[in-house]
Amino acid sequence: MGREQLLREFQRVRAFTEKLCQPLAVDDYQIQSIVQTSPPKWHLAHVSWFFETFILEHFKPDHAPFHASFDYLFNSYYYTHGKMQPRPERGLLSRPTVEHVMAYRAYIDEQIRKLINQVDEKAWPSLSNRMVLGLNHEQQHQELLLMDIKHNFFINPLRPAYRDTLVIPAGATSPMHWFECEGGLYSIGHQGEGFSFDNETPRHSVLLYDHRLADRLITNGEYLEFITDGGYTNPALWLADGWALLQTQQWRHPLYWEQQDSEWRQFTLSGLQPLNHAEPVCHISYFEADAYARWVGKRLPKEEELEVALEEQKMIGNFTNTDLFHPVPAKKDGQWFGDLWAWTCSPYIAYPGFKPLAGRMGEYNGKFMSSQMVLKGGSCVTPKGHTRASYRNFFYPNERWMFSGLRLAEDVA
Amino acid sequence: MGREQLLREFQRVRAFTEKLCQPLAVDDYQIQSIVQTSPPKWHLAHVSWFFETFILEHFKPDHAPFHASFDYLFNSYYYTHGKMQPRPERGLLSRPTVEHVMAYRAYIDEQIRKLINQVDEKAWPSLSNRMVLGLNHEQQHQELLLMDIKHNFFINPLRPAYRDTLVIPAGATSPMHWFECEGGLYSIGHQGEGFSFDNETPRHSVLLYDHRLADRLITNGEYLEFITDGGYTNPALWLADGWALLQTQQWRHPLYWEQQDSEWRQFTLSGLQPLNHAEPVCHISYFEADAYARWVGKRLPKEEELEVALEEQKMIGNFTNTDLFHPVPAKKDGQWFGDLWAWTCSPYIAYPGFKPLAGRMGEYNGKFMSSQMVLKGGSCVTPKGHTRASYRNFFYPNERWMFSGLRLAEDVA
Amino acid sequence: MGREQLLREFQRVRAFTEKLCQPLAVDDYQIQSIVQTSPPKWHLAHVSWFFETFILEHFKPDHAPFHASFDYLFNSYYYTHGKMQPRPERGLLSRPTVEHVMAYRAYIDEQIRKLINQVDEKAWPSLSNRMVLGLNHEQQHQELLLMDIKHNFFINPLRPAYRDTLVIPAGATSPMHWFECEGGLYSIGHQGEGFSFDNETPRHSVLLYDHRLADRLITNGEYLEFITDGGYTNPALWLADGWALLQTQQWRHPLYWEQQDSEWRQFTLSGLQPLNHAEPVCHISYFEADAYARWVGKRLPKEEELEVALEEQKMIGNFTNTDLFHPVPAKKDGQWFGDLWAWTCSPYIAYPGFKPLAGRMGEYNGKFMSSQMVLKGGSCVTPKGHTRASYRNFFYPNERWMFSGLRLAEDVA
Amino acid sequence: MGREQLLREFQRVRAFTEKLCQPLAVDDYQIQSIVQTSPPKWHLAHVSWFFETFILEHFKPDHAPFHASFDYLFNSYYYTHGKMQPRPERGLLSRPTVEHVMAYRAYIDEQIRKLINQVDEKAWPSLSNRMVLGLNHEQQHQELLLMDIKHNFFINPLRPAYRDTLVIPAGATSPMHWFECEGGLYSIGHQGEGFSFDNETPRHSVLLYDHRLADRLITNGEYLEFITDGGYTNPALWLADGWALLQTQQWRHPLYWEQQDSEWRQFTLSGLQPLNHAEPVCHISYFEADAYARWVGKRLPKEEELEVALEEQKMIGNFTNTDLFHPVPAKKDGQWFGDLWAWTCSPYIAYPGFKPLAGRMGEYNGKFMSSQMVLKGGSCVTPKGHTRASYRNFFYPNERWMFSGLRLAEDVA
Repeated sequence: MGREQLLREFQRVRAFTEKLCQPLAVDDYQIQSIVQTSPPKWHLAHVSWFFETFILEHFKPDHAPFHASFDYLFNSYYYTHGKMQPRPERGLLSRPTVEHVMAYRAYIDEQIRKLINQVDEKAWPSLSNRMVLGLNHEQQHQELLLMDIKHNFFINPLRPAYRDTLVIPAGATSPMHWFECEGGLYSIGHQGEGFSFDNETPRHSVLLYDHRLADRLITNGEYLEFITDGGYTNPALWLADGWALLQTQQWRHPLYWEQQDSEWRQFTLSGLQPLNHAEPVCHISYFEADAYARWVGKRLPKEEELEVALEEQKMIGNFTNTDLFHPVPAKKDGQWFGDLWAWTCSPYIAYPGFKPLAGRMGEYNGKFMSSQMVLKGGSCVTPKGHTRASYRNFFYPNERWMFSGLRLAEDVA
Repeated sequence: MGREQLLREFQRVRAFTEKLCQPLAVDDYQIQSIVQTSPPKWHLAHVSWFFETFILEHFKPDHAPFHASFDYLFNSYYYTHGKMQPRPERGLLSRPTVEHVMAYRAYIDEQIRKLINQVDEKAWPSLSNRMVLGLNHEQQHQELLLMDIKHNFFINPLRPAYRDTLVIPAGATSPMHWFECEGGLYSIGHQGEGFSFDNETPRHSVLLYDHRLADRLITNGEYLEFITDGGYTNPALWLADGWALLQTQQWRHPLYWEQQDSEWRQFTLSGLQPLNHAEPVCHISYFEADAYARWVGKRLPKEEELEVALEEQKMIGNFTNTDLFHPVPAKKDGQWFGDLWAWTCSPYIAYPGFKPLAGRMGEYNGKFMSSQMVLKGGSCVTPKGHTRASYRNFFYPNERWMFSGLRLAEDVA
Repeated sequence: MGREQLLREFQRVRAFTEKLCQPLAVDDYQIQSIVQTSPPKWHLAHVSWFFETFILEHFKPDHAPFHASFDYLFNSYYYTHGKMQPRPERGLLSRPTVEHVMAYRAYIDEQIRKLINQVDEKAWPSLSNRMVLGLNHEQQHQELLLMDIKHNFFINPLRPAYRDTLVIPAGATSPMHWFECEGGLYSIGHQGEGFSFDNETPRHSVLLYDHRLADRLITNGEYLEFITDGGYTNPALWLADGWALLQTQQWRHPLYWEQQDSEWRQFTLSGLQPLNHAEPVCHISYFEADAYARWVGKRLPKEEELEVALEEQKMIGNFTNTDLFHPVPAKKDGQWFGDLWAWTCSPYIAYPGFKPLAGRMGEYNGKFMSSQMVLKGGSCVTPKGHTRASYRNFFYPNERWMFSGLRLAEDVA
Repeated sequence: MGREQLLREFQRVRAFTEKLCQPLAVDDYQIQSIVQTSPPKWHLAHVSWFFETFILEHFKPDHAPFHASFDYLFNSYYYTHGKMQPRPERGLLSRPTVEHVMAYRAYIDEQIRKLINQVDEKAWPSLSNRMVLGLNHEQQHQELLLMDIKHNFFINPLRPAYRDTLVIPAGATSPMHWFECEGGLYSIGHQGEGFSFDNETPRHSVLLYDHRLADRLITNGEYLEFITDGGYTNPALWLADGWALLQTQQWRHPLYWEQQDSEWRQFTLSGLQPLNHAEPVCHISYFEADAYARWVGKRLPKEEELEVALEEQKMIGNFTNTDLFHPVPAKKDGQWFGDLWAWTCSPYIAYPGFKPLAGRMGEYNGKFMSSQMVLKGGSCVTPKGHTRASYRNFFYPNERWMFSGLRLAEDVA
């Protein structure tokens, strides 16, 4: 990427982060509703810390840190880099203030711009690569910002709305069609010149069996049938860890649903709304997705099956550019990218021959390869252009605050 | 109290609460560092809720609540009144915003002023009494505000200062003198026309034994000798519950102390400061106070001993009016009121014949009469005029974030 | 006490401990149902460790310990003596076996007998005193054994019976009479030549107010009215700590009660039995006793009120010598000693001038003087002869597995 | 299998379970040291419950249960069958006694023998299949018995020995050789007539890449180099969940190791023994195995790689028939089966086309397919004849009390 283009891209991504925060009051920047979420203020600072630590400190030996304590406060999980504020205590910090964090962002912006303009040609390819990583990193936190804001507002008895209006396209979902795939050897993993994370490589062969995949996600209406049929009370449908959790947490429905009188509603970024039966069901755990699939006599797709299918689809869908931040019913041509991350039944482990990034960046992805599951496809809160067929998102099977959905698969006998 | 006077007093107390918050950034109003503290924003709203719930709703049958959810959000512990936001989750609420809470205060101020001006003569005595309780309640929260802000800032790695300057009077503490008291029957408890809480009544006889009380609090320097002598490592000095706690919490010194190189420092409302040996030791638990007393061969005073002694002292001392918000060394004439609440060895239980306030107000004090200890005398963060000899403050023996200190007593054989 | 008499007493007390264990299977000796209880095997060894540590090691400098690890395993809470097996893990030890523990007892018995016979006259008074303490200590553990066995069996779904038959005297309870006491100065605390624990001394004056005490305990039938009237659902009746606990623990009745169909039953040492309405209500916490008293418009007795009353009563009652191990309905002449320990509203703190025993024995009683409440009178599982008017039993206000009951008091206006 | 043969096999397996318990005192049967282990008594009863519930109740409609409560007490995790004693509370039950449990075993033995002799030919194949499952189930609990007894004794400060003598073959381990495997399509999964669990089926194709596997396990001596090199203090070597755990649990070495002075010892079923450097390292978690492999620049084998290799090996090794119950150094011809279960880097998930057993037995294996890892090969506490190449053992990545070891693999570039 050329300097001009990178400067524009840097400006665009940084500005979008701040735009996402515009509806927030200063008060909203402090909240960490659960240990998995982070205060918006922390996200704003952390992505800047990432540029400061892994780019400015690396390429500008005389770089003066903005603040002596920010390295401690805004390191997320890079243990080989240094100590950090404990994750569960990110929400206990009123200082630095939002104003101070915004000054930090401006300082980093200025320093990065200078660096891009001034670095010599020899260092450019390396800087450019690292910058693209930093921008993709900031985009990941754009999605996290929306996920976390939604949860921060959900646990507030006032049920505040992040935005006022929610205009969901009218009409029913399209019928489910099945996308057939013949067994055999296929290739998955990133290839080509574009950016990818280390965990998407190397591209390699996989063996698939005859199977089919649903061309759209399961809807709220379909999921409601599972609930009505006693899905949450029948242990035969659940993985053991899921059943234990369901009992402890008293799960009876997806995370943001609630029943008022006999009406179901769901909490959205526009506050509490009537449940739209045609929309894909959202904010479910792996355990719930898996139980639904078992109930209906199917299974979840494997990561490799879904990746192969995604490679054949056009990269269109409901991402942040629709400005909806909410999933919409499937259209006639199916629902492959966007709307919701689809749970796969594949644990998140290394691809054959996987090598993490060198040095401290090696902690970015590889160290999370235990006990998590892969999700694919992107969501309505994923920045457009950020995802791709080989993109591997991952969460623990019990987590629900991300925009996760459910696509069915089945073996062809 | 006349209407004019009450209006002035109401204006004065409400304004002082807001003045205490002036040094805060909007960000600082959200934080609840531990379950015992509350966010400053919550305090500001709760004291207003108290006026709204127990006065406006009582004396103005047509009172329109400011907001339908505030009764849930800002009820502290009145279970007979209704449900409430769980205490450990007070810090998770970004809404209502500080601005909204300030509007709430203004609304309540206006409504109360109208009520005072308009209520008829028949209702006046009852309203006046309840107003005085409301003002004393708000003063209690003024002290809590300062306690909680101190702790919120303490747990922040930036160690912010609530205020910039701390000017502690120079000079040593005065030598400790002993205040002798002959055994016999005495009276304690509130009497007279002034305000008191229900738990200070009825006035009643108590039997004292010959004893003496120290005329000042134990200093940081004296407490340091206890530490140096292994006070925190000798189980023979500690109550069993205290020793267990000390092990679990790794207590090695008072709450806000820390050792940098070989220098002791303490965190104050003006940030981290060198430890002043002449000041009274502050932020210690009952267990620490009791262990120190045992180490030095004395004991803590009984509530009734200290109350009898306080009745003979002038009500002067270091309260919020000194604008220090920090304890100072004892002067020649001793240290009886102000500076720090002195732990007594008396559990907080009912006086003989105690009757709690009628109705829902009965939950104000009486229901806390188990497992807590009485402290007396007021502190440097107690509003001047708020305390008196019969005032009974109470905390659990493990708590340390309040401005608690240590006065010695001993039996006279 | 003479050597002969002490030898007989030693033999009698030690034998009674073992007799209490006769109904147990080897399997039963290992169980620690909750952290407060100890396995019967642990009790058997601990009381022997007490004799070994505080008598044999003290009076026989060449004493050879029975086993090098027993000092660690069977020290209960003497931190100044040395380290110990963590209390919550007493039930995880299959070794030493019951057989090994019995050999330990026999070894200690033999050594103690030799010591009593051989010690010189000069050491005799000191040894004799310490022996009496050791015997009283073992008697305390006899009561604990029965309390703990009852709980160990209660949490077993088989609901085993410790003993087969339970013959409770038929007939109703006698009506409640009130024992009047005029206010004034009284003396409480142990006096005279007999044994007492350190916490019962010194005898001292107390000031009482006019009051009356119920001459019997509250019955199951009376307590059932409290339950039926919504006693467990009305926060106005409860101390704050109690109400919080009730919610967390889902308390709806005394510890060992259960409702089958509409019939109430209670678990006893003879298994599950129909609830006898005439018996005193048992296994209630301080919070429940206090809530009942508030509901009925009375209060619990103060420690000093009950002690003064007990001094006037004959030391007769339902102790272990009745071989019932279960409380019985009050008889015509009231119910003062035995049956159940009566909760007082007095926190367990030091008497004026209290001095703990010297040395490591100082940990016996004094260090527990925080957050616990005094109970008085002894119970049906207290060995006859072990208690007296000045005896101060103490438990935390939330505890229920001991044989605790409820006696009312009220002020006389 | 014929009736005679099955009767003999039944007799043999049941007798071996009881033989394993012979060194235990009655006291030892009650202990549950951690939530993962079960008291030996519970194992003895549970395997009998399995025969009673899934065979006697199924094939003998008039079967009279041995005891009405045993179905509740000894159901392990079959939620579709009914309620059960909570797992963490298995160790709190002194009743039924060991004697009673042995009578239960005898009753079940008698009933099963009658059933085998009396069932008609039509039902025979189905009964025979279910019996073989029951016997394999009991063999799994034989291994668990030894694992659990080892842990129960380990947490006892007396460090008791299950057996007196431990004779480990002298001599060094053989050098590590690498077993090469060319990439391509292979088959794994059970085939043929012998018994397998449902999770080993169906046999299916897998795609392997060029790789090599070590022909023996890593030794204590080799693992010690990892420790000495700071393996437990370098976050770059660890998966994130493992690093968090290591910090919380203060892991510094494998579970049963301890350092006395400068000597390393390990706890064995024969008590504390000097660490034999030539033996394979045992009782390590997946996180430790993975960290070691990363440290040495290799990786762990995939399940399919190890299964393919095991299929080529003779089924010989150190199982329970050696009567050692302890791993031994590798011999010249490598170390493939027995000694220790080798961690693979494969999460435990369903094989393509996997179908769980029908009905309640479906809970046997399938529901555990989340967040666990596969181990292969059997161990020194696995009954001889119980394992095979396709056998899939599985544990959570943090678990260490099983006999787990570490085999290296690497890609061939």
